[in-house]
Amino acid sequence: MATDTPHPLAPPAVTGMPVAGVDTPALLLDLDAFEANVRTMAAAVASSGVRLRPHAKAHKCSEIARRQVAAGAVGVCCQKVSEAEAMVAGGVNDVLVANEVVGAPKLARLAALASHARVAVCVDDAENAAEVSRAARAAGASLDVLVEVDVGGRRCGVPPGEPALWLAQHVCGLDGLRFAGLQAYDGSSQHLRSVAERRAAIARAVEHVRVTRDLLAGQGIACATITGAGTGTFIFEQASGVYTELQPGSYVFMDADYGRNAWDGFPSFRQSLYVWTTVMSTPAPHRVVVDAGMKSHSIDSGMPVAADWPGLGYVNASDEHGVLEREGGVPMPRLGEKLRLVPGHCDPTVNLHDWIVCVRGSRVEAVWPVSARGAFY
Amino acid sequence: MATDTPHPLAPPAVTGMPVAGVDTPALLLDLDAFEANVRTMAAAVASSGVRLRPHAKAHKCSEIARRQVAAGAVGVCCQKVSEAEAMVAGGVNDVLVANEVVGAPKLARLAALASHARVAVCVDDAENAAEVSRAARAAGASLDVLVEVDVGGRRCGVPPGEPALWLAQHVCGLDGLRFAGLQAYDGSSQHLRSVAERRAAIARAVEHVRVTRDLLAGQGIACATITGAGTGTFIFEQASGVYTELQPGSYVFMDADYGRNAWDGFPSFRQSLYVWTTVMSTPAPHRVVVDAGMKSHSIDSGMPVAADWPGLGYVNASDEHGVLEREGGVPMPRLGEKLRLVPGHCDPTVNLHDWIVCVRGSRVEAVWPVSARGAFY
Repeated sequence: MATDTPHPLAPPAVTGMPVAGVDTPALLLDLDAFEANVRTMAAAVASSGVRLRPHAKAHKCSEIARRQVAAGAVGVCCQKVSEAEAMVAGGVNDVLVANEVVGAPKLARLAALASHARVAVCVDDAENAAEVSRAARAAGASLDVLVEVDVGGRRCGVPPGEPALWLAQHVCGLDGLRFAGLQAYDGSSQHLRSVAERRAAIARAVEHVRVTRDLLAGQGIACATITGAGTGTFIFEQASGVYTELQPGSYVFMDADYGRNAWDGFPSFRQSLYVWTTVMSTPAPHRVVVDAGMKSHSIDSGMPVAADWPGLGYVNASDEHGVLEREGGVPMPRLGEKLRLVPGHCDPTVNLHDWIVCVRGSRVEAVWPVSARGAFY
Repeated sequence: MATDTPHPLAPPAVTGMPVAGVDTPALLLDLDAFEANVRTMAAAVASSGVRLRPHAKAHKCSEIARRQVAAGAVGVCCQKVSEAEAMVAGGVNDVLVANEVVGAPKLARLAALASHARVAVCVDDAENAAEVSRAARAAGASLDVLVEVDVGGRRCGVPPGEPALWLAQHVCGLDGLRFAGLQAYDGSSQHLRSVAERRAAIARAVEHVRVTRDLLAGQGIACATITGAGTGTFIFEQASGVYTELQPGSYVFMDADYGRNAWDGFPSFRQSLYVWTTVMSTPAPHRVVVDAGMKSHSIDSGMPVAADWPGLGYVNASDEHGVLEREGGVPMPRLGEKLRLVPGHCDPTVNLHDWIVCVRGSRVEAVWPVSARGAFY
């Protein structure tokens, strides 16, 4: 029984039990598919001379981070300081916070982390860079700093070219900071559906990065690292001759939104992540209701897909209910039957769970904690 | 620093500190507004002879549940067994799981809970009712059971009339169960924008419930409880002469989606819940980026609203970023400045947080745990 403090629920499964016995809702990880994905990405990047630094915001699980590093990744990316803290506590010794960190309390924690691991962070503002420098000096630490360049995402980042040069020069003049290169992630291109659209978008981003890199080089500032890319585009950044490091995250799991992309020319990643759910009501011949709603998977990028029930569409999510309706004359699952949903978007779905139930065939092989669940500070 | 198990992060605030010092992202609760909302709903229901049983899925916080009970609520609703466990552990002694519970493990936990509190649950299927009965008998418990009637939501529930009578008769014949009445919640009406639309929708639901109640009464089956209603419609169920119990949840907080409803004739509820966020990037004169994305608030019902910055629209959310753009020539917040967002949808937003930071004026007065955060089993 829960106590009057927040704490993770007990795991929904124990090692060795049949999958059929796993409580719902739960995250299931198909280990064969997951391991294949880790190997496939490592192999795709290994021969190219480009480093792999997977984004841990996708899995928030230090067990997965350790496996990515064991397969050849140089470390991980994180989005928040608390996420980086969880990864370092879990044994990862090289972390890039691929994001800006603002405010003295967070920066003090970031600088403290640098005594346990190699830590890098991004900046897109001179005032913020000065604040990072103060935190590094106060901690007696040295931080790698990348200038974030907006290559099309219209989120954070300075414009390519002169503004990036100016900020890089500023960083080079600040104590406690090592200018390490450029962060250049184009998030807005990852889910363009056709390969041609994604190729064209990344070609534009690469050109922005190339111009900026060359401008800095002309002023004697070398970019040891140029980092970016996601699961939807990484083959283009990899082949660019400009990027030195790739940050894909979702490839370990995949999801329904990535499932709607075309993938010609990409290595093949398998769906490994599912939300395990029980049919809790069968109110009409064409409709069933499951116990996994938007508190156990995220619908920001569309509804989940019933993996093993073609013709059964997940049409509506409320907090703790999912309504599935038959699209044709297909069979329907029975009351109490459990089924697998492919989540619409893997990253925010994993963040709703405390545990990942790892499955091989029909058995639970392990239960991994989502060690950075809720780590948004 | 986090360890390699899931656990709540440290609270983002301590009692007595200024709000300006609260780490971000964080949930802020304006205590004056919250307390007014609790009082307003209690007063609205007190004189009507109808009971108030607020839905704890909105807040998942036993401190809030205790305050609702202290103000006159008879207990709370929950959506899941684990949510009910957290509320009972937190001192609530009367819980309605306003939902179906399927499967022997969950039902064993529900029946066990009945030795600590009065526990009721819903059914919409004879096979499930038999399963509930077996669990109650195995635990030596007696459970109140309500038949859920679909009054327009097209989610769970049997149709009104004969199917509900048939299932009620079935429940009456099962050991360990007390037939307690009808669950009749019309979720699909809560966000119809005009009061007239909501009134008309609930009039239809009430008619379904009245017919069903009278049919059961004609067969000698009394409905001690007829329960339903949400924040968007409760005045209509309250005045219906049919409903005996109301289940609103969101009224304690309110949100941007409810803010788009018309409210003529309703008691006035104030926005009390905010997501506290920091400007982490100011990349263009018309654009700022904040550190609260969809991992700290839910966008299922639309984007959040910047509470204190009219003319600044939250236009895009990624996992850990929110992009805000100026709609006119309004002033813009500075880098590092903190601001309050009204979340799009309060229930799934609260579920992303471990702590609620309670604020009076400019000071933190308390920090409450979200005791049932992630409790979806």
